[in-house]
Amino acid sequence: MPNLNLPFLGHGCDYNPDQWRAYPEILNEDIRLMKLANCNLMSVGIFAWTALEPEEGRYDFDWLENVLNRLHEAGISAFLATPSGARPAWMSHRYPEVLRVRADGLRNFHGERHNHCFTSPVYRGFVNRMNTALAERFGKHPAVVGWHISNEFSGECHCELCQAAFRDFLKAEYGTLEALNAAWWTGFWSKPYTDWAQLHSPSPVGENSLHGLNLAWHRFCTRQTTDFIRKEAEPLRRLTPHLPVTTNLMELFGQLNYFELADALDFTSYDSYPLWGNPDQEWVAAGAAFNYDLMRSLKQRPFALMESTPSQVSWKNVCKLKKPGVHFLSSMQALAHGADTVQYFQWRKGRGGCEKFHGAVVGHAGHEHTRTFRDVQSVGDALLKLVDLRGAMPGAEVALICDTENRWALEDCQGPRRDLKYIDTVLEHYRALSRRGVNIDIIDETRDFSGYKLVAAPMLYMLRPGVAERLTEYVKNGGTLVCTAMTGRVDRNDLCFLGGFPGPLRQTLGIWIEEVDALYDDETNDVEMGGQSYSCATVCDLIHAETAQVLGAYASDFYAGEPCVTRNDFGGGAAYYIATRPDANCLDAFYKEVFDRAGVRPLIDDLPVGVQVTSRGDALFVMNFTGAPVSVTLPAGTDMLTGERVGGETELGINGVKIIKF
Amino acid sequence: MPNLNLPFLGHGCDYNPDQWRAYPEILNEDIRLMKLANCNLMSVGIFAWTALEPEEGRYDFDWLENVLNRLHEAGISAFLATPSGARPAWMSHRYPEVLRVRADGLRNFHGERHNHCFTSPVYRGFVNRMNTALAERFGKHPAVVGWHISNEFSGECHCELCQAAFRDFLKAEYGTLEALNAAWWTGFWSKPYTDWAQLHSPSPVGENSLHGLNLAWHRFCTRQTTDFIRKEAEPLRRLTPHLPVTTNLMELFGQLNYFELADALDFTSYDSYPLWGNPDQEWVAAGAAFNYDLMRSLKQRPFALMESTPSQVSWKNVCKLKKPGVHFLSSMQALAHGADTVQYFQWRKGRGGCEKFHGAVVGHAGHEHTRTFRDVQSVGDALLKLVDLRGAMPGAEVALICDTENRWALEDCQGPRRDLKYIDTVLEHYRALSRRGVNIDIIDETRDFSGYKLVAAPMLYMLRPGVAERLTEYVKNGGTLVCTAMTGRVDRNDLCFLGGFPGPLRQTLGIWIEEVDALYDDETNDVEMGGQSYSCATVCDLIHAETAQVLGAYASDFYAGEPCVTRNDFGGGAAYYIATRPDANCLDAFYKEVFDRAGVRPLIDDLPVGVQVTSRGDALFVMNFTGAPVSVTLPAGTDMLTGERVGGETELGINGVKIIKF
Amino acid sequence: MPNLNLPFLGHGCDYNPDQWRAYPEILNEDIRLMKLANCNLMSVGIFAWTALEPEEGRYDFDWLENVLNRLHEAGISAFLATPSGARPAWMSHRYPEVLRVRADGLRNFHGERHNHCFTSPVYRGFVNRMNTALAERFGKHPAVVGWHISNEFSGECHCELCQAAFRDFLKAEYGTLEALNAAWWTGFWSKPYTDWAQLHSPSPVGENSLHGLNLAWHRFCTRQTTDFIRKEAEPLRRLTPHLPVTTNLMELFGQLNYFELADALDFTSYDSYPLWGNPDQEWVAAGAAFNYDLMRSLKQRPFALMESTPSQVSWKNVCKLKKPGVHFLSSMQALAHGADTVQYFQWRKGRGGCEKFHGAVVGHAGHEHTRTFRDVQSVGDALLKLVDLRGAMPGAEVALICDTENRWALEDCQGPRRDLKYIDTVLEHYRALSRRGVNIDIIDETRDFSGYKLVAAPMLYMLRPGVAERLTEYVKNGGTLVCTAMTGRVDRNDLCFLGGFPGPLRQTLGIWIEEVDALYDDETNDVEMGGQSYSCATVCDLIHAETAQVLGAYASDFYAGEPCVTRNDFGGGAAYYIATRPDANCLDAFYKEVFDRAGVRPLIDDLPVGVQVTSRGDALFVMNFTGAPVSVTLPAGTDMLTGERVGGETELGINGVKIIKF
Repeated sequence: MPNLNLPFLGHGCDYNPDQWRAYPEILNEDIRLMKLANCNLMSVGIFAWTALEPEEGRYDFDWLENVLNRLHEAGISAFLATPSGARPAWMSHRYPEVLRVRADGLRNFHGERHNHCFTSPVYRGFVNRMNTALAERFGKHPAVVGWHISNEFSGECHCELCQAAFRDFLKAEYGTLEALNAAWWTGFWSKPYTDWAQLHSPSPVGENSLHGLNLAWHRFCTRQTTDFIRKEAEPLRRLTPHLPVTTNLMELFGQLNYFELADALDFTSYDSYPLWGNPDQEWVAAGAAFNYDLMRSLKQRPFALMESTPSQVSWKNVCKLKKPGVHFLSSMQALAHGADTVQYFQWRKGRGGCEKFHGAVVGHAGHEHTRTFRDVQSVGDALLKLVDLRGAMPGAEVALICDTENRWALEDCQGPRRDLKYIDTVLEHYRALSRRGVNIDIIDETRDFSGYKLVAAPMLYMLRPGVAERLTEYVKNGGTLVCTAMTGRVDRNDLCFLGGFPGPLRQTLGIWIEEVDALYDDETNDVEMGGQSYSCATVCDLIHAETAQVLGAYASDFYAGEPCVTRNDFGGGAAYYIATRPDANCLDAFYKEVFDRAGVRPLIDDLPVGVQVTSRGDALFVMNFTGAPVSVTLPAGTDMLTGERVGGETELGINGVKIIKF
Repeated sequence: MPNLNLPFLGHGCDYNPDQWRAYPEILNEDIRLMKLANCNLMSVGIFAWTALEPEEGRYDFDWLENVLNRLHEAGISAFLATPSGARPAWMSHRYPEVLRVRADGLRNFHGERHNHCFTSPVYRGFVNRMNTALAERFGKHPAVVGWHISNEFSGECHCELCQAAFRDFLKAEYGTLEALNAAWWTGFWSKPYTDWAQLHSPSPVGENSLHGLNLAWHRFCTRQTTDFIRKEAEPLRRLTPHLPVTTNLMELFGQLNYFELADALDFTSYDSYPLWGNPDQEWVAAGAAFNYDLMRSLKQRPFALMESTPSQVSWKNVCKLKKPGVHFLSSMQALAHGADTVQYFQWRKGRGGCEKFHGAVVGHAGHEHTRTFRDVQSVGDALLKLVDLRGAMPGAEVALICDTENRWALEDCQGPRRDLKYIDTVLEHYRALSRRGVNIDIIDETRDFSGYKLVAAPMLYMLRPGVAERLTEYVKNGGTLVCTAMTGRVDRNDLCFLGGFPGPLRQTLGIWIEEVDALYDDETNDVEMGGQSYSCATVCDLIHAETAQVLGAYASDFYAGEPCVTRNDFGGGAAYYIATRPDANCLDAFYKEVFDRAGVRPLIDDLPVGVQVTSRGDALFVMNFTGAPVSVTLPAGTDMLTGERVGGETELGINGVKIIKF
Repeated sequence: MPNLNLPFLGHGCDYNPDQWRAYPEILNEDIRLMKLANCNLMSVGIFAWTALEPEEGRYDFDWLENVLNRLHEAGISAFLATPSGARPAWMSHRYPEVLRVRADGLRNFHGERHNHCFTSPVYRGFVNRMNTALAERFGKHPAVVGWHISNEFSGECHCELCQAAFRDFLKAEYGTLEALNAAWWTGFWSKPYTDWAQLHSPSPVGENSLHGLNLAWHRFCTRQTTDFIRKEAEPLRRLTPHLPVTTNLMELFGQLNYFELADALDFTSYDSYPLWGNPDQEWVAAGAAFNYDLMRSLKQRPFALMESTPSQVSWKNVCKLKKPGVHFLSSMQALAHGADTVQYFQWRKGRGGCEKFHGAVVGHAGHEHTRTFRDVQSVGDALLKLVDLRGAMPGAEVALICDTENRWALEDCQGPRRDLKYIDTVLEHYRALSRRGVNIDIIDETRDFSGYKLVAAPMLYMLRPGVAERLTEYVKNGGTLVCTAMTGRVDRNDLCFLGGFPGPLRQTLGIWIEEVDALYDDETNDVEMGGQSYSCATVCDLIHAETAQVLGAYASDFYAGEPCVTRNDFGGGAAYYIATRPDANCLDAFYKEVFDRAGVRPLIDDLPVGVQVTSRGDALFVMNFTGAPVSVTLPAGTDMLTGERVGGETELGINGVKIIKF
């Protein structure tokens, strides 16, 4: 598998000169401005299908060749995109089967992107011919450094072709209807299937509460999308084995299991659109960092920041401008967590289209005399100075589990609460861990735990086969495990463990969960721990500490005084349980204790809240997201941006960042 | 008609061993635990169709016989359910006509329960054959003490079969299109029907604002559902005339007119899921009591509490645990209002299915060492001590009208407000009446009023033929009638009365309603009455007291000083009008006055707010829903739970209950 | 074109005696009461299709002739309605093509009004035959003074007939697919059309974010509706050229471009339902006044107030009664702004139908002894005294642009905010202008600006061809122009202007807009202007004053101190820019300054907030919407209602109105 292996840190944009072919002067001006902005990497061809194949079977690639030539002449490389994120109108019109069918069984009209059936042999055939032709024509073009497959995969199709594929998937998964019925507990409400032909995707106007079916459908959608990607990539990999393949992934995306999908990619790339401007900037920055860590962890390789905005987006209800300094800081943050590129959507704002007001390097005014352009230039400058970072990885002693299949199950769960706030909880643990100033890997429950000193696994409701055993082994061998409310309830088919929750983790955690209370949205309980009182919310597991020590207890309701936070010393390690969803101060105090016992060392001690720190290779990134100047004690080293020596107590300005080489 | 006539107070659960056939050790363990929990009555076979008929025409009843045998050996009786609440996948697959069609004309896919057409001859045929076979096989089984038909009837179907049945219903109702057009006032917006074939059920994508049509459709749905129940019961009644037939009804259920549907049942049964844990526990308890009184009043017979939860539910947004004492108190409350059983959904939590986290007697841990199990045991203990109550009825001097057809009309009403809060208003009057410490019957406007000293009829917007005359006769003969805002506007077809509202009750109430003002959700007016000031909301009828005396007046807006509360002494009785929706204090003061004049005597004087009292036979129930200890003056008698003498000022603990035999 | 040219000020109602044909005594009683209420103008035949044509091809007009005869005998005139606002059930049943198809491609069932395809030749044929027959029979009836076409046109149809018509419309608009693709910027997301057959109306299940398509569809719907109206009117105009034609228009109606549709009418008529009773009565009154001014401005002729309620409506969530005096005041307000009639929906409340509780002159009580009836009588009295006003027009020096196509574009706009509050902003400017005590015309950007001293053009995002040039010419010639945030972004196809916003108005306004920030709903910035500080919200254009003078600046966020309010002296006039959405106080201060410089004179100086003033011919209307008594300095003249001399400081009571003849 080829890797993203650029001789530079990439800096550039989605570039769509195909939209500007009626404005012939624009291409020259674009090249001039790209150089001025220190850009070296453009993504071209995204959504360009109709431009590339204006009628069935007739390809028009000359314009693209001209663009690639011009870029190359200017010393600019390119990711070449396949156009399959949207199909041409002529295709939908002639072959309606390429359009998706909704869960109610009705077929969409043509329109929008991402509106094609992933199963359709007609669509797959068109994609194969297009990609073959692109690879043949441009596979050896000197500007091309990688393939950008389609765009932001998402969605599902319920057509008869997909139903047939889904049935085949189920046969392969379960073998027999007996096994399927047992796994899905179809005896409830007379749901047993007695013929494979009766199986159908979940639908709001049909079967929609059979959790096993819902899970299987989610898995099938990931499987089918991943299969589609592999088929997309097949001619590319065959004809251009030297070029790495990626597709751009999305923030906190729950529809697809990226841990499975990433297997079909050579490197990951990511579209990052944090809510900069939101009053809680620390929370926003933690969320951004979480996603970067996820993208890096998916393949344990640096990733491409494929899209970000140099200014504002256009598709949120309220699209705030980046304040001064935020663009530089947010770009460095991506780098800090493992990005080898900083790229934007997009280079030049289109005159029309629904994203015409999305921030871009070049606006409708068309020139370089803008705050945004200057911000972009300064990032380009910095990337030149930081080139040695490319390929470098942080070493993480701490892993946080965010498991997509677990998310599917929890979000479908009925009882004790419809909204169990899985992702919020994961992010709260991420923020608490990052406040301690360490590098963090984001993994799912299928990954190897053995390399970490600490594994935090909030709300690990679903334990797939072997997971509990591997976690137990991990703790026995000296690892530290943190679990929380809603842990250890079901197996991979959403069948409850019998014999007492948390099921196969009961001995490891040393507790038995007898009941779970749910709290109203505006209701809290309190946790007494270490002489302090904290607030907690959402759910309260009522637990018996069987072998665990009680570290904290509930303070109100009828379970006041009962255990809430426990530690079970088990083998060479320790397994913690937080039986509820505590507030940030509680998690801070908790993890301080846990880090001390587990021997996890921060990169910087006494990090102020809102300052993030991460390391990459021999560089330390210190980033100020507090919204105010802040004083931090830095280790001695060289400021890679200024070349100056730094160290000791240092003031970081608003949105300030230091990148220090040891 | 056979009655529910058990030799004990029933205690038990929905029991689905069909879901556990792959776990052969479970049945023995279940029987052991049932005896430990003092259970004597299980409901079996609910939703078991695919287990009972795994393929068309092939019945597999042996497992059920084994279960019934085992129960009987253990001294446990059973309600035997028909499985028609959900159809097997094979049936939907082969006979799509059994699936419902939505109001937009599209047919559902297979899935979920309650998704079958009540008209379909295919479905009715399958049900008939199944029920015949069940009755033949188990009708004489010694464990079986009654039939549990289907489950929680609800919903509607708009298929062509239903459209044809609806047209037949309309022909029978109206005879001619002229009569139908006149009754529905179709001249408005050119809606006259000129051919029966033009008639179609209401639809959001068709006709949806013709109130007469909407009412007729509601009536048809009740009629068709009731007809379905009768057809379901026909083979049962024919083959097992000794066994009573019921189906389980739901809380505040507005789709079906239970007063009509109950005619098809031998006794009523009820699924009770109050929001215990909600901060306003008095309101929750009043709502629970209201529904119990309704279930008893429907047939003026004791009812079965067919479902309740020993712990928490799983299907609400927030599912709170029952706090200590609440399960005992809430079970006794059902008994207090006329239940002859306390049953749970369900016996054992399933490993899967969308209700796997619903509270059950036996949880996933599988043993008896839980708070929930102990709570259930204590209820079982108590029921043994209270066995003499079975069959006993309260004698109610007070009736509250909650009329389903009136509800349909009010909820469809346009003007003066979309949300007229009919059910809220009915419950507010119920709470006020129950605070006075009396037994209350819940009736609709078709029932006989003559046996009551007081009839409260909030928002009796629709007066069907004869109702006004019967209410007038009732007052003339010495009865006391309480009416409120929005009374006496329309006839059974939603045609307004001409000549001045409240139409045919104008003379009886002695008022004329000239206008109605609507208040915003956050807006109130005030009522001055008896020297006190109260708040009121929602709607304000502007009335002229023609022969009535004015008891209270509005205090603000342009109608300040105009009458708001009136009494009309009429014949030997009195008719009150409250022209708005007053607050709880106002209703308390109002009903205190009304009770005194009407000579209605409380069961206990000076009842603290939040303590409920009711009598059944010679037993008095005193129940503390205040959430705190409270002092009550009890009459002298024997505490049926402890055997001790009680009387005089007595402290009731949190969630405490006393059951006193005179 | 004939005009509305009545010999009186019209006073009357929608009158539907067809609904009461089973109540033969009603017609006589109606005539008696109409005379008592000083009514002289009834609208008859609305929605009466089934009464007029009970089966295909059989007309029954005798009842209508009798009604017209009876009205005429009583000295009452009539607008005769065509019944096409709702079709008979027999028509939908036999010709399903007359029913609309929804955007998802599915056809509606029969039901409701406004549910017919405007393209269907079958429907158009029925309408043509009906209207021909009506005109032949009643065109010379002495009671008939005008035609009321259909009712409240609205909605759209997506059937294949409409798709074909839409494609024809697009061919006529764009000529070639190349031009269409360029205009819609279809290169984005691979949306080019390569065959006309691929074009389809926007759909939530198809193409829905192509702004050019969406705009074209809006234009098509207006075009097709207007074409339908012309075809409706064709037999009327041919057979009764002396009778003017109207249809009733609706409040702030955004679906149809009334500025285009009005061309098909001889005079406009309006259905006015302000939220009287809302706590912010000044805002309600300003909104009502805005719509009246629009109706007058559409054809620069007096209009008919075709519908209003004498009491309350029935179709809002909360329908409040008009307080004492409000009906008189609100009726005079319509007159003040150019109405030549005051009409109600409706004369008599129907017994049934979904609007049976809508306020009417005669209620269900059926007599005249009601507050509402007396209110109506007093309006009738006043209209007799004010008859000289008929046909008179105000002379407006101030115009406010509210452009429907601009509204379509802004409401579809993505970025910088989903909700840009165009209509709110227009109304805020209207209120600010009206607080200055002047007459105001409401125009769109196609109208002539040259006659005005001041043109306010809030959020003029879309500048169609020639508009910027005409605005520039207007300013050059001495006019005063006010623009605001979100001005000058796109052309008529929603293509952005290149070279710097506000595009072709950049020189005229003397500013360049570099960026736009969006504010959260609960977020504000501040404007410092003239030593005062004000609040602003929603969006903040960040501008460079190129030739403009800075009048006000932002006070917070990173753009504190940057220009916010500017004036550019340009040619003989001035062009202002307000770069955000300021609060009411800011607009008041701003317009005070603008009026002084532009030499616009108020009708009354120092008008208290909440008092509205307008003039019509030689009459001055002064209206108190403050909800309290208020003192105003009146010019000397005669009170037209009392005949008394007035002038100088005068107290206006709550809801008081003075109409003063100079």
